Amino acid sequence: MSMTVLRTTDAWWLITSRGAARIDTDATTTGELLGDRKQIEAAAGSTATVDPATLDLVSPVTAPCRVVAQMTNFISHVTDSGLDPATIPLTFFRKASGSISGPFDDIIRPDHVRFLDYEVEIGLLIGRDFPVGVQVTEDNWASFVAGLVVTNDVSARDVQLPKTQFFEAKSYPTFTPVGPMLVLLDEAELKRFGDLRLRLWVNGELRQDSVVDGDMIYSPLRALEGLSRFQRLDAGDLLLTGTPKGTALSAPPKPVEIIAALLPPAVKWKMFFKRQAGNPKYLKHGDVVEVAIGTDDGGLDLGRQRTVVKVA
Amino acid sequence: MSMTVLRTTDAWWLITSRGAARIDTDATTTGELLGDRKQIEAAAGSTATVDPATLDLVSPVTAPCRVVAQMTNFISHVTDSGLDPATIPLTFFRKASGSISGPFDDIIRPDHVRFLDYEVEIGLLIGRDFPVGVQVTEDNWASFVAGLVVTNDVSARDVQLPKTQFFEAKSYPTFTPVGPMLVLLDEAELKRFGDLRLRLWVNGELRQDSVVDGDMIYSPLRALEGLSRFQRLDAGDLLLTGTPKGTALSAPPKPVEIIAALLPPAVKWKMFFKRQAGNPKYLKHGDVVEVAIGTDDGGLDLGRQRTVVKVA
Repeated sequence: MSMTVLRTTDAWWLITSRGAARIDTDATTTGELLGDRKQIEAAAGSTATVDPATLDLVSPVTAPCRVVAQMTNFISHVTDSGLDPATIPLTFFRKASGSISGPFDDIIRPDHVRFLDYEVEIGLLIGRDFPVGVQVTEDNWASFVAGLVVTNDVSARDVQLPKTQFFEAKSYPTFTPVGPMLVLLDEAELKRFGDLRLRLWVNGELRQDSVVDGDMIYSPLRALEGLSRFQRLDAGDLLLTGTPKGTALSAPPKPVEIIAALLPPAVKWKMFFKRQAGNPKYLKHGDVVEVAIGTDDGGLDLGRQRTVVKVA
Repeated sequence: MSMTVLRTTDAWWLITSRGAARIDTDATTTGELLGDRKQIEAAAGSTATVDPATLDLVSPVTAPCRVVAQMTNFISHVTDSGLDPATIPLTFFRKASGSISGPFDDIIRPDHVRFLDYEVEIGLLIGRDFPVGVQVTEDNWASFVAGLVVTNDVSARDVQLPKTQFFEAKSYPTFTPVGPMLVLLDEAELKRFGDLRLRLWVNGELRQDSVVDGDMIYSPLRALEGLSRFQRLDAGDLLLTGTPKGTALSAPPKPVEIIAALLPPAVKWKMFFKRQAGNPKYLKHGDVVEVAIGTDDGGLDLGRQRTVVKVA
């Protein structure tokens, strides 16, 4: 049965019907906490609980850890970017785990960034050793996943696109808000992954809203199969599984794209960002970004994250 | 004064005028060894030495660690790829540190890879904490660097180009041969970085041969400045600084490139790799890859690596 874990700077907490119960553990990292499962379970019997609303929550996933992310992985996002979903290979990149921040922390836009964007993503928390070469199957994939978290894959588009490699543009501090909840799931519960709805609002306006089934291209099974070729993972590592349509970045119309393909890169990007400057959807100082993930029937609920954008 | 360190599975060694002296340390990682500098220095006085040629050397950089790599960073390589060096931004990507292998280990080409390529690169070993936001200057950059190693940034081109993100294509096990030597340098010696010549041979044929000064676009100073915006590093982490021209990958002529830009990605890559199939320079089973880096006057010598390609 699912267990919902919260974290404050000084403790780990389990949500019970009576409130948040402190978990009796010395774990300082999420990986260590996962190794202390009996203590998480024991907290369910605790009578000394507090109102979770009084807790000052930080990310339930601790850094350093490996943060691996899937590139364009939703049909709606690919189509929206002017591409054909059938041509999108299973592709990963890394984010610096120093980008992880709390679910209610500010998102800090660095001075040199002009086009700040958001991407709601389901985070898969790895639960045990995942060595290169491990066999991943329909039957065992869920055994590698301890649980799920809400994440926002914040992106500096004016860094990302000219550099082509996504690593830096998505790795600045506070560019991966995580949480509030870490929802630990058993294998049967993880089978409901496809029912999860991802939503993101900016200043109350719903910008992203999509259900995994029918939109996600490469499932966690396929992603883990792909990763097993080259990337070892350990308990406490995080896999971000891609975002649906609705980000601020908008694709140029086809004729513009064809002309741009013939231009030198510097000219192409200058033209592109000149157009984007008129796009009001990029995040500005003071914007409130809310992110929620769960099933429509409430059976799975990863909670709701609320961050405010600050210009450095 | 420079010190040259070797590593075997059971020990660390310092090269002395009498041979290799075992370093009296419990360090199991390169980061820990760097913290044991007094013991490295003490080994210089050891009289119990062995012939270094009798040692079965492994990588002097241990995994896990962070491996960050610079994208196209040599004028000759950029020009060779049909691009303009003036338009190349300072760009980084990550390699999985599980790709690190020994200086005399085999390079294993995975089953699904057809176009296996090589890239000689100077590896910078980070020597101390390098937090995000740290000020990097002409005067202090060398203080973050403990020393240098020979590396080969092995690349699966048929994975790298269609996926666009370089992470997977350069992260398969054995795709980062490192060593043999870890050459620890003081700041004055590091100032000779620009004099280093990078060379790579395949079956005795010299394929890459270039000196840093006049060819490298973003120096270690510029690279560390760039990284300080977003990527924390620690002692024992590795920065690969890019490769000069001479890799197997050859750029298509300009008219072909323009036509390709108008094609759907799948068709474009099919056409591209059909052309590349006639290119004899990609690595084949049994190919011997040798890599050496040093100054022409022998003042700095990072040693010579020799690996053999095996098809999985």
